[in-house]
Amino acid sequence: MKLYDCAGAPSPRRVHVFLAEKRIAVPRVQVDLRTGEQFTPEFRAINPDCTVPVLDLDDGTKITDPIGICVYFETVQPDPPLFGAGAAEKALIASAQRQAERDGFYAVMEAFRNSTPGLAGRALPGPHDYAQVPALAERGRSRVLHFFDALNARLATREFLAGPRYSAADITAMIAIEFAGWLKPKLTIPESCSHLARWYAAVSARPSAKA
Amino acid sequence: MKLYDCAGAPSPRRVHVFLAEKRIAVPRVQVDLRTGEQFTPEFRAINPDCTVPVLDLDDGTKITDPIGICVYFETVQPDPPLFGAGAAEKALIASAQRQAERDGFYAVMEAFRNSTPGLAGRALPGPHDYAQVPALAERGRSRVLHFFDALNARLATREFLAGPRYSAADITAMIAIEFAGWLKPKLTIPESCSHLARWYAAVSARPSAKA
Repeated sequence: MKLYDCAGAPSPRRVHVFLAEKRIAVPRVQVDLRTGEQFTPEFRAINPDCTVPVLDLDDGTKITDPIGICVYFETVQPDPPLFGAGAAEKALIASAQRQAERDGFYAVMEAFRNSTPGLAGRALPGPHDYAQVPALAERGRSRVLHFFDALNARLATREFLAGPRYSAADITAMIAIEFAGWLKPKLTIPESCSHLARWYAAVSARPSAKA
Repeated sequence: MKLYDCAGAPSPRRVHVFLAEKRIAVPRVQVDLRTGEQFTPEFRAINPDCTVPVLDLDDGTKITDPIGICVYFETVQPDPPLFGAGAAEKALIASAQRQAERDGFYAVMEAFRNSTPGLAGRALPGPHDYAQVPALAERGRSRVLHFFDALNARLATREFLAGPRYSAADITAMIAIEFAGWLKPKLTIPESCSHLARWYAAVSARPSAKA
């Protein structure tokens, strides 16, 4: 088994933190996204979507999605449960993870990919080229600010995003916030969001955050 | 338990088909999205995100996301497994479901919400208003055409999207394709996509598709 990876990139980092929480080590193969290695015929044969992370199982099965990879490890090693235990908790974590991804991670990506000069023509990840849309750079930033407020409101009554237990939802939200620091000018947690700041300090201090 | 619903809308339909496959019946409460009932104070108290479907459990827990709701029912009634059995199948289904959502369902939504006159100022679902971006109407259509080709390629070697078994991934993709029929002009499966047409005929003929 091996993990196609790009050290420092936000999507593979979701898997790194998840694996660190599970204390699972997987050999990593670096794919250099900066030089376009994901578009080579060799990598397209591994993942036609031209993205990392990809988990390559011993039988050749390729899992080409970060949450798909996390689901794999949650199933082979349920402890600690990062997608929850029991129907209601599993449902709340899945929902919170998806909300953090859609309203946070993808909003930052929208701002970043539509404003970064080196990503001209690459407004969306994947095998197809799409032109940057300047209005989306601004919209993405606005969405991120709404995301901070929505997280802050959730965390006023919860220790972690989906309730009393740290979960995959916290990983996605933490990395979305880190990713917001890549924007120019960068977006950081507003002073008004004290619950969010408390939570962010806690999740960032976990050993897994250094994975 | 009850399901806040809007008959005919694509997102709640994902839950309807899932429940029909499981042969589970849940009482439904209609929320009229056309008159903006999702923005009333009453509905915001149920879901601050102003979206349906929402599953309201007997203890008052609200599951506000379509896949979160499906996860709930998969856990309380695993049979038939629509998110798979075993680590590799679960991972492949999660990945295929997410790909169908991102590259299919959201691409149609991008085209639809950025081109429909009645949705001016409502380019994204949720509590916040975002202006339509004409370039996204066109980009969304382009993405849908790529989605058809990508599905066709997958289905050349698989009976269903994630392998030999019907799953939540097939539900998302089927409804994305139905939703593409809402576009003006509508987008339909190209004649060149014979594998996709074969699959679409099969999934649409299942009794659950009429749910």
